[in-house]
Amino acid sequence: MDWKGKTIGFGLTGSHCTYEEVQPAMEALVETGARVIPVLSYTVQSTSTRFAEADEWVATIERITGEKAIKTIPEAEPLGPSKLLDCMLIAPCTGNSLAKLANAMNESPVLMATKSTLRNDRPVVVSISTNDGLGLNATNIGKLLATKNIFFVPFGQDDPWKKINSLVARNELILPTIEHALRKVQIQPMIVEKWRDLQK
Amino acid sequence: MDWKGKTIGFGLTGSHCTYEEVQPAMEALVETGARVIPVLSYTVQSTSTRFAEADEWVATIERITGEKAIKTIPEAEPLGPSKLLDCMLIAPCTGNSLAKLANAMNESPVLMATKSTLRNDRPVVVSISTNDGLGLNATNIGKLLATKNIFFVPFGQDDPWKKINSLVARNELILPTIEHALRKVQIQPMIVEKWRDLQK
Amino acid sequence: MDWKGKTIGFGLTGSHCTYEEVQPAMEALVETGARVIPVLSYTVQSTSTRFAEADEWVATIERITGEKAIKTIPEAEPLGPSKLLDCMLIAPCTGNSLAKLANAMNESPVLMATKSTLRNDRPVVVSISTNDGLGLNATNIGKLLATKNIFFVPFGQDDPWKKINSLVARNELILPTIEHALRKVQIQPMIVEKWRDLQK
Amino acid sequence: MDWKGKTIGFGLTGSHCTYEEVQPAMEALVETGARVIPVLSYTVQSTSTRFAEADEWVATIERITGEKAIKTIPEAEPLGPSKLLDCMLIAPCTGNSLAKLANAMNESPVLMATKSTLRNDRPVVVSISTNDGLGLNATNIGKLLATKNIFFVPFGQDDPWKKINSLVARNELILPTIEHALRKVQIQPMIVEKWRDLQK
Amino acid sequence: MDWKGKTIGFGLTGSHCTYEEVQPAMEALVETGARVIPVLSYTVQSTSTRFAEADEWVATIERITGEKAIKTIPEAEPLGPSKLLDCMLIAPCTGNSLAKLANAMNESPVLMATKSTLRNDRPVVVSISTNDGLGLNATNIGKLLATKNIFFVPFGQDDPWKKINSLVARNELILPTIEHALRKVQIQPMIVEKWRDLQK
Amino acid sequence: MDWKGKTIGFGLTGSHCTYEEVQPAMEALVETGARVIPVLSYTVQSTSTRFAEADEWVATIERITGEKAIKTIPEAEPLGPSKLLDCMLIAPCTGNSLAKLANAMNESPVLMATKSTLRNDRPVVVSISTNDGLGLNATNIGKLLATKNIFFVPFGQDDPWKKINSLVARNELILPTIEHALRKVQIQPMIVEKWRDLQK
Repeated sequence: MDWKGKTIGFGLTGSHCTYEEVQPAMEALVETGARVIPVLSYTVQSTSTRFAEADEWVATIERITGEKAIKTIPEAEPLGPSKLLDCMLIAPCTGNSLAKLANAMNESPVLMATKSTLRNDRPVVVSISTNDGLGLNATNIGKLLATKNIFFVPFGQDDPWKKINSLVARNELILPTIEHALRKVQIQPMIVEKWRDLQK
Repeated sequence: MDWKGKTIGFGLTGSHCTYEEVQPAMEALVETGARVIPVLSYTVQSTSTRFAEADEWVATIERITGEKAIKTIPEAEPLGPSKLLDCMLIAPCTGNSLAKLANAMNESPVLMATKSTLRNDRPVVVSISTNDGLGLNATNIGKLLATKNIFFVPFGQDDPWKKINSLVARNELILPTIEHALRKVQIQPMIVEKWRDLQK
Repeated sequence: MDWKGKTIGFGLTGSHCTYEEVQPAMEALVETGARVIPVLSYTVQSTSTRFAEADEWVATIERITGEKAIKTIPEAEPLGPSKLLDCMLIAPCTGNSLAKLANAMNESPVLMATKSTLRNDRPVVVSISTNDGLGLNATNIGKLLATKNIFFVPFGQDDPWKKINSLVARNELILPTIEHALRKVQIQPMIVEKWRDLQK
Repeated sequence: MDWKGKTIGFGLTGSHCTYEEVQPAMEALVETGARVIPVLSYTVQSTSTRFAEADEWVATIERITGEKAIKTIPEAEPLGPSKLLDCMLIAPCTGNSLAKLANAMNESPVLMATKSTLRNDRPVVVSISTNDGLGLNATNIGKLLATKNIFFVPFGQDDPWKKINSLVARNELILPTIEHALRKVQIQPMIVEKWRDLQK
Repeated sequence: MDWKGKTIGFGLTGSHCTYEEVQPAMEALVETGARVIPVLSYTVQSTSTRFAEADEWVATIERITGEKAIKTIPEAEPLGPSKLLDCMLIAPCTGNSLAKLANAMNESPVLMATKSTLRNDRPVVVSISTNDGLGLNATNIGKLLATKNIFFVPFGQDDPWKKINSLVARNELILPTIEHALRKVQIQPMIVEKWRDLQK
Repeated sequence: MDWKGKTIGFGLTGSHCTYEEVQPAMEALVETGARVIPVLSYTVQSTSTRFAEADEWVATIERITGEKAIKTIPEAEPLGPSKLLDCMLIAPCTGNSLAKLANAMNESPVLMATKSTLRNDRPVVVSISTNDGLGLNATNIGKLLATKNIFFVPFGQDDPWKKINSLVARNELILPTIEHALRKVQIQPMIVEKWRDLQK
């Protein structure tokens, strides 16, 4: 696929370990030649971890993408009328953001950018990471699985014995999932044995 | 109808263009002789637009209604026991507020005032404006359509070609919708071809 | 559009007046050159009306389409593996069938043919006719509006004053709705002032 | 585990290939020494396939289990007060039965036996087989995943490329799933790469 | 209240013990001078019990009410346009009928009569009796509690220790519940300690 | 029951009168010898009432329990991996927190601690207090009633005549409810006539 001319929103949600998990996908996406617009949840902007200060994260993200991050809801709203994004990615997508998306709440920059993308009949790709995916969040995932323009990075149980309801996406597949989603196709298989990846 | 002695809560939600859309209805409501109590979401209180600063809005709203606006959840809570409101209007009602209302979340002054009104078995009128009304928000609208004490200002698609899932109410009908709602009747027709209004 | 080579399932549900409402669409569909496979609910097969006996209906439908009707669930099941249908139409789609479709129940020939079509990632077009569309059925419609591969023949309130929750599709638009659905596009506007059609 | 003294309801639903898929599990269950009470949906009782006539099936099932099958709703109702069943298995559980179970409809012998088991706070094990598991049935599965006393035989996509929404359980795991369920524990991993089983 | 001139639909669902439970309410309703139209589910029509044969039941019901019972869906459909019923009662309302009502399915004479009543913006009164009321049926009850024109005969747990999820209405309150419902008011208290009634 | 060695999370939500209602239960819980970890919603931390300043509350809570309160989401997250809590109590649980819990949103310290407890397959006890429990929140309660690991302090209508949809738990039963929940059993009766308590 020719990524030139494509603009991808890259939404980050969650409170910790967020960046490390998806940085390789962000770098790979930039390398394809696509324009990558980072969109950051308020939590991502304000939470520091043992890996890095919140400010450093934002700086690194902006350096990798070469774009100023979208950090507020008003900054995200124009993405609707401008039709800037060809596809919106949420990676990682926490359980909380997943639940709000499924229920049509949009009170974060990432969710507003997502809503703006759906408004334009364009694809949204979610890379879930939530320990209640087979618990109370399961109906939300169920609803989104059948929803127009929503596509999932293949996911599965990451630790079925200790975290019985946890589901995590295989972030290595973010790029091919977006490629399929741009053609309005769900990459397959969508449900994988994620815990095997982690046992290697 | 004799509006004298009626007290109407006027809840405003949303981030931009909010005031212009509903100012005529607010003025008309005051002219009927009804007491109009403004209730403002936090977003309305803090967002400035090219039309006016947030502070100016609040001042104008309080001048038109001659009432101090309710700006916090604790200020809205006494509306339950006091039974002050005969009817609560949300105009405009954003997709986010609509979704929270449908799912029984009430973490804003407008939603708390709404919950207080429902507690007293009194009517709530919603004037929706959301671009996912025929998308992920559709089940929320579906739930509210069948809910006791919820009434809708007639609404329809405002731009079916460019915003395929968008629904917007006909704000000119706010007053008659409230008149009907006070008698626990839904004004009809409820579903209209809104886009024709905008092509005039 | 070239309809040659296209095969359309034509599912009929409902208990009365069914045939008269959609017969013109069935004839027009056959005239395009498409192959039209009738699928009949058990009710359609067994209910006689003042217009015709149930048996006559079935005979007429088979004569118009030149195809033997699918009348049982086992006859509908092979539509999945055979991928015979390019698109499945349900017209009229009663409130009961709509509710069952939305909740994934498939205990009728029409619903089984529909499920088989969705299994193959192909479009389903529904032409609703139900007097609880804005009542208890509204959440079902809300769910289906956002569902992949489901498309609606434009619909609206047919009699907002006497049947306050009733929604009926504009059957004259069945053909163009299918044309759009075959390209995975929803025809617009989708929400119309149906009662005006009936006042002409 | 000592199966002696345990009584397991074995509910069969679905229209074809039903028996072959689960016969080995039924035989194994009987061999443990458990009492196995077959419960048959109306469809199972009336549908003949290329493998066997419906009547032969019923006869074989009754011969294997040494029990007279429960074939009607009134026959299933006493299972509530009698507390006969320690666990109720539905295998295969079709999409239609799954949807009805999730929505609390019980108009079949198998669903009535299931409801009777839940009434007594005892475990129900479902072995799903449905091609809309990742489509419209996904919210039903999502609801059941979080529901008290419901346990799943590990399941996954059986053919992610040709049947994109299909989910099928690994019937070889019926016995250990019941063993866990009798202790109110979900066997893990619950989500598996079923298609690999079929490629062997 | 003056019951003269009022017409009440009396829908019976369920498979056993049905008649004994509500016969006193039926007789009391007739004594008020109201016209009472019996509507019977197919199960009621076909199930005999140790108390009486199905046929005798139907005969007794028709004798008490002095009306021919509505026994089919086509017979129930005209209740919509004719606006014959001022109120529709379902007593007992089984879990299955409750679930179908909440999900907008209407494939029984009782449910069709109910839908016809809602179509006319008139009250429906449900007297529940189901042993999964606090289990999988709880979301259905939850939906109906908030639904326009639905009113409940006060209900509660009938045996909290042996049937932990069971809810049964206090049938002695059917008449006052209808009286309130005709004024669109829910009788209170709605949630009662039903088990105390049964310990007397 | 021997409470020694048990660690109970005590989550407080709500904006007013919160502390007085549950202080006796907190003291009684500490007296059993259990370790009690307070978790405070942001609202509890910031709202002063006529009874006490917010700061005083926090100080009193920490003095009673002898534990530093968990006041932020990052502080609550480690409760998952550490498996510190044997049971998580939410008392009072407001309508808003109840709705978020049911929909899998976890953006408060109390909800994050709750999610962490569910992740470990351990019991959560909710003591509800909400005036829309029989209104829009009823489906949320309905969902939670059937959910694994969720248990309810017995609740009922507190004022059926003035607050028709209000439900409040009997806080005197918090301790025995937790005792049952630790054995994964729901205390019974669960639905009580709460208004009688208040008339004494």
